[in-house]
Amino acid sequence: MSTNRQFKLAQRPVGTPTRDNWSYETSPVAEPGDGEFLVRVRYLSLDPAMRGWMNEGKSYVPPVGIGEVMRAGAVGEVVASRHDGFAVGDTVSGLFGVQDYAISNGRGVNKVDPKAAPLPLYLGTLGMPGMTAYFGLLEVGKCQDGETVVVSGAAGAVGSVVGQIAKIKGCRVVGIAGGAEKCRYVVDELGFDACIDYKTGDVKAGLKQHCPDGIDVYFDNVGGDILDAVLTRLAMHARIVICGAISQYNNTTPVKGPSNYMSLLVNRASMTGMVVFDWAARYGEAVTQMAQWLQSGQLKSREHVVEGLQNFPETLLMLFNGENFGKLVLEIDEPN
Amino acid sequence: MSTNRQFKLAQRPVGTPTRDNWSYETSPVAEPGDGEFLVRVRYLSLDPAMRGWMNEGKSYVPPVGIGEVMRAGAVGEVVASRHDGFAVGDTVSGLFGVQDYAISNGRGVNKVDPKAAPLPLYLGTLGMPGMTAYFGLLEVGKCQDGETVVVSGAAGAVGSVVGQIAKIKGCRVVGIAGGAEKCRYVVDELGFDACIDYKTGDVKAGLKQHCPDGIDVYFDNVGGDILDAVLTRLAMHARIVICGAISQYNNTTPVKGPSNYMSLLVNRASMTGMVVFDWAARYGEAVTQMAQWLQSGQLKSREHVVEGLQNFPETLLMLFNGENFGKLVLEIDEPN
Repeated sequence: MSTNRQFKLAQRPVGTPTRDNWSYETSPVAEPGDGEFLVRVRYLSLDPAMRGWMNEGKSYVPPVGIGEVMRAGAVGEVVASRHDGFAVGDTVSGLFGVQDYAISNGRGVNKVDPKAAPLPLYLGTLGMPGMTAYFGLLEVGKCQDGETVVVSGAAGAVGSVVGQIAKIKGCRVVGIAGGAEKCRYVVDELGFDACIDYKTGDVKAGLKQHCPDGIDVYFDNVGGDILDAVLTRLAMHARIVICGAISQYNNTTPVKGPSNYMSLLVNRASMTGMVVFDWAARYGEAVTQMAQWLQSGQLKSREHVVEGLQNFPETLLMLFNGENFGKLVLEIDEPN
Repeated sequence: MSTNRQFKLAQRPVGTPTRDNWSYETSPVAEPGDGEFLVRVRYLSLDPAMRGWMNEGKSYVPPVGIGEVMRAGAVGEVVASRHDGFAVGDTVSGLFGVQDYAISNGRGVNKVDPKAAPLPLYLGTLGMPGMTAYFGLLEVGKCQDGETVVVSGAAGAVGSVVGQIAKIKGCRVVGIAGGAEKCRYVVDELGFDACIDYKTGDVKAGLKQHCPDGIDVYFDNVGGDILDAVLTRLAMHARIVICGAISQYNNTTPVKGPSNYMSLLVNRASMTGMVVFDWAARYGEAVTQMAQWLQSGQLKSREHVVEGLQNFPETLLMLFNGENFGKLVLEIDEPN
């Protein structure tokens, strides 16, 4: 009989999460009850949103409770089943949590084809980040042929897809990313028109240079000073998609609101928040389209795979330090 | 021959405008050239937006230049004309500026009927503030029957009309205003469902009490802490109309951005800027509708009239101190 290793939330973090916020526990693997199945987790998705789930208070999903297994998207294999819809050997994606084995009743679980794409892709371009990019850019940002699209976190799981879809749709695309290597990747490999390195460059000046007609759509993953810089360069009727604000998630001081928000008035612009779950009924449409683009080579995907469940706490922090390059995924090592 | 008294912008203010920012000058009244007419100004509109026009830099209209007559909406009478479309005796509204007499070529000037309504009404409910309320609430805020609408500056020229139109449209309406007298007026005379006195009350607690199902539309005239408080109480898919931010106009420190803007994400909400000029082609439709509502008593209007061109600098400041009650208008005394 196997052991299930789990990371549970022990304390709510103040600022950057530490090891003390987690309790690492082992227990025997549970048996699925009637209408349930058991998943052996293979890859965990590490997402900036996870930091928000660790906080108390009302948000778009309930917080992870103290003592609960940390919520995380994952792909894995069904290894035991008493559920009519899922059989042993099925490959599935769902919110299985930071553990080796998860019991599921099938809600929110999708079968994926392990032959059609490498498993980590189902956590990236063909998973939540890809869905977020697709619906956020097309349905909230409503980018049009010939417009200028700016995206922050441009080398990340969401941003890299946003920029590539915008290129496919005929937009001029300017990324914002941290470091020369990421910027080179975004321009040379993904085909963005330009990329501004926020670590060494002046973002405002870069936007002025690369967006001479202003910014029509800004897809914001970071918030903070970069959002404020973008606000100074909006085109008339610009749309800002608020997808995330990673620069603010570990704040111990109040969030920095966008001081230049009155640019929304001057430019008759809008700022709209999005949560990908609202488009769940249309994921199929997006996955089909994205898979086609991946196959034709119009869309490229990059995963940053770290191995070992034990490395979860430190690996999660890579997101906030900008250390990941592409979709950050934790590969679960063989449990015992 | 008459004298024209004028207030010109002498310096750009830092913070609250002072007398030194203005130069008061007198000159002989000019003669209209071919295609022009001369207006004797009767009432000047004093608007929060004027503070923005005094600043340097790009905005939705060019700044008033140093040495130029201060821009202001006004109503007056045509007293001399060499323009085919405007005859002596016509009553007109337009941006005639802070002076006794203005030369106009007719651009942006509308004839008004002095028998249909008192002249100051053409600077308030039947003028820019009324148009701003009408199109901002209905076209940007898109309020629907049964929704909860919150408006700041509720006793002001724009806010009082926003709230009344929202009531006509079947919404629950909560105002935010400064002082018990304004709050009483808004509830007892204008028919708002509730009003929160931001000077003595806790705005967050008031919103919680009066908007139990959250806020569907927030019409923002003030920005600052009140905008932040509203953000904590949004309903799903809420719309925030950014019309102004009077709390921030005299800042000498950077504008306070809305720290709670991530509530837009949690609630899939939007924040959209508006400038009334974009609806100029549809003013006629709004004036007709508003005049009907005024006549039927569904819409009430209140003007705060101060007399004397000389009092312009101090009267303008009443807006920022919250001293006006209803639409603030400067009545021009008989020049010499």
